[in-house]
Amino acid sequence: MSLLVVGSLGLDTVSTPFDKVKEALGGSATYISLAASYFSGPINLVGIVGSDFPKEYIRLMEEHNINLEGLQVIEGGKTFRWAAKYHYDLNVRDTLLTELNVFESFNPIIPERFRKSKYICLGNIDPILQMRVLDQMDDSHFVVCDTMNYWIEGMKDDLLKLLKKVNVLIINDSEARLLAHEPNLIKSARAIRKMGPEILIIKKGEHGALLFTDDVVFSAPAYPLEMINDPTGAGDSFAGGFVGYLHRTQDVSPESLRCAVIYGSTMASFCVEKFSTKGLEELSYLRIQDRFREFMNLSRFNEKE
Amino acid sequence: MSLLVVGSLGLDTVSTPFDKVKEALGGSATYISLAASYFSGPINLVGIVGSDFPKEYIRLMEEHNINLEGLQVIEGGKTFRWAAKYHYDLNVRDTLLTELNVFESFNPIIPERFRKSKYICLGNIDPILQMRVLDQMDDSHFVVCDTMNYWIEGMKDDLLKLLKKVNVLIINDSEARLLAHEPNLIKSARAIRKMGPEILIIKKGEHGALLFTDDVVFSAPAYPLEMINDPTGAGDSFAGGFVGYLHRTQDVSPESLRCAVIYGSTMASFCVEKFSTKGLEELSYLRIQDRFREFMNLSRFNEKE
Repeated sequence: MSLLVVGSLGLDTVSTPFDKVKEALGGSATYISLAASYFSGPINLVGIVGSDFPKEYIRLMEEHNINLEGLQVIEGGKTFRWAAKYHYDLNVRDTLLTELNVFESFNPIIPERFRKSKYICLGNIDPILQMRVLDQMDDSHFVVCDTMNYWIEGMKDDLLKLLKKVNVLIINDSEARLLAHEPNLIKSARAIRKMGPEILIIKKGEHGALLFTDDVVFSAPAYPLEMINDPTGAGDSFAGGFVGYLHRTQDVSPESLRCAVIYGSTMASFCVEKFSTKGLEELSYLRIQDRFREFMNLSRFNEKE
Repeated sequence: MSLLVVGSLGLDTVSTPFDKVKEALGGSATYISLAASYFSGPINLVGIVGSDFPKEYIRLMEEHNINLEGLQVIEGGKTFRWAAKYHYDLNVRDTLLTELNVFESFNPIIPERFRKSKYICLGNIDPILQMRVLDQMDDSHFVVCDTMNYWIEGMKDDLLKLLKKVNVLIINDSEARLLAHEPNLIKSARAIRKMGPEILIIKKGEHGALLFTDDVVFSAPAYPLEMINDPTGAGDSFAGGFVGYLHRTQDVSPESLRCAVIYGSTMASFCVEKFSTKGLEELSYLRIQDRFREFMNLSRFNEKE
C-alpha cells in the first residue's frame, strides 16, 4: 500500500523583498513527496531531471524515504528551471523565467512495482500526462489531483476528461471560479463536483481552505504567520500533507478528510516559513502534530449553556 | 444594564445585478440595533433623522424593542441618503450618492437614562462624535467601536485618541493594513492592539473574521452562502450580533468573545441574504442558534487517535 507522486522536479531561483535563493530544489513532485514523507513511507516518485540535477537533492529525497526508482535522469539533459520575484505583497509575483528543458519531453512511465499504489497524487502538470499516469495504474486507487489556471484555460477538454477519473481535486479560489465560470465559490464548488471529483478542496491562501463533500462544507483556517519568507510550494505542500495523512490512516471518511485538510494546511505553513524546501526538510511528526493542535485551538468555540 | 448604540440612520438606494431598492431603511445604528435586538433588549439608540423619515421604519424599530428616546428628529430636515451600485463581483461597489443632510450637524446627546449603559457600540461615524459619546458616559463601560478607511485616512489623530478608550475595535482587513501600515495581518493586529483596543476583530468578508486577544488568535469561518443579495450592512450586523451576545451573557471572557464573533458572523449572514434590513426583520433566537450550530459544524474537526 504505497503512495505514488507524479509531478515536476526543478531548480528554482526565487527572490522576495527579504532574501533570495538560486537554483534551489523545487517542483511540484518534490514538495508533495517531502510533505507526505512525514506521514508514511516510502513515497514512490515519478518525474524527470537532467544529469545536472545536484546529487545533494537526490540524497535529500532518499533520506526522506522517497523511492526514486521512477525518476528519469536524462544524461546530458538540463533540469527544468523556473525563476520568480515576489513583491512586498507576497500574493503578487512575476515569473521571470520558465525553462522546461527535459520536462518538455516528459513521458511518465510508472514502474511495474508502483502500479498497485492505492493512493496517487498527481502534481500540477499537463492533464494529458496526468491521464497517462492513470492509464498505467491497476484499478481501485484513490486519486488526488492538482491543476492550475494555465491548464484550465488552455487544455480544458483534456482536463475535463481527467476530472472524471479523479477523487479529489485541489485548486485555488480563482481557479475554481475560472473552471466553473461563476464568481460565487459555493456555486462553483457544486458545478466542479458535477464534473467528476466527489471531493473538492478550494485553497484560499492566507484565508485557509474549503473542503466540499456531499453537500457539506468544512472551512479550515490558515495558520496565522507573522513572517512568510517564500510562498513557493505552499499548494504542493498542502497536497502532500493531505494525501500523506490519508495514506497513513487509510481512511477517506468525511471526518478523516477534515483532518487531512488541516494536516495539509499544517505542511503549507511550515513550507512558507523558509525558502525553497528548507521548511520541509527537518520536521518531525511530533512537531507536525503540535501545529495540528494549534489549528484546533485556532478554530474551536463552544457555548457555555 | 442596557446596550447603547450610536451611529447613522439613513435611506439607502441600492442596486445589484439581481435587484434594487429605493430609499430603504439603512444606516449603521439601524443594522447594529436590529441585529442586537434578538439577543437582549431594550437597545438604546442615539442618532438623527429628518422629519421625512418614514413612520413605518420608526414602528419597525420600536417593534424590535429599540428605545428611540435618543433619536433626534429634525423638523423640516432631510434624512441622510446614500446610493450605491454593486457589481457582478459583489465585493466591488460604486457609491453613487452621499447626502449627509441632517447628519451633517449631528451632535450625539446621550439621554440621562442611557449614560449608565454598560455596553456601548459606536457605529462607523466621525471619531470626534464617537469620542463625544464616551465623554458623556458614566465610568466602567465596555466599548465596541467600528470605523472605516475614510476616518483612518482623514482623521487619524482623532481616531488614535479614541482608540485608547475602546475595548474592541472591529475593522476589515484592508482597513487594518491601512491603519498599521503593514501588509501582514498578524503584524497589523499586534500594532493596532498597541494603539489601545485590547481586543481586535478583523473582518474578511467571504473569508470570515479573526479575533485577536492576548497573543491568541481565533479564526471564524464565513457562512457558505450561495446567494448574496445585498452586502450592505453586513459589517454593522456583525457588530450588532457580537455586542448583543456579550450584552446578553454579560461575559467578555475569551471563550465568550469567540462565541460572540460567531454570533456576529451569523447575523451578517442573515443580513446579506436579503435587501436592506429585510434579512434582520423576522428572525427568532431559535433560528439564530440553528445557524450558530451550522457554524460549529462548518469548522469542527477531530482526530480519531
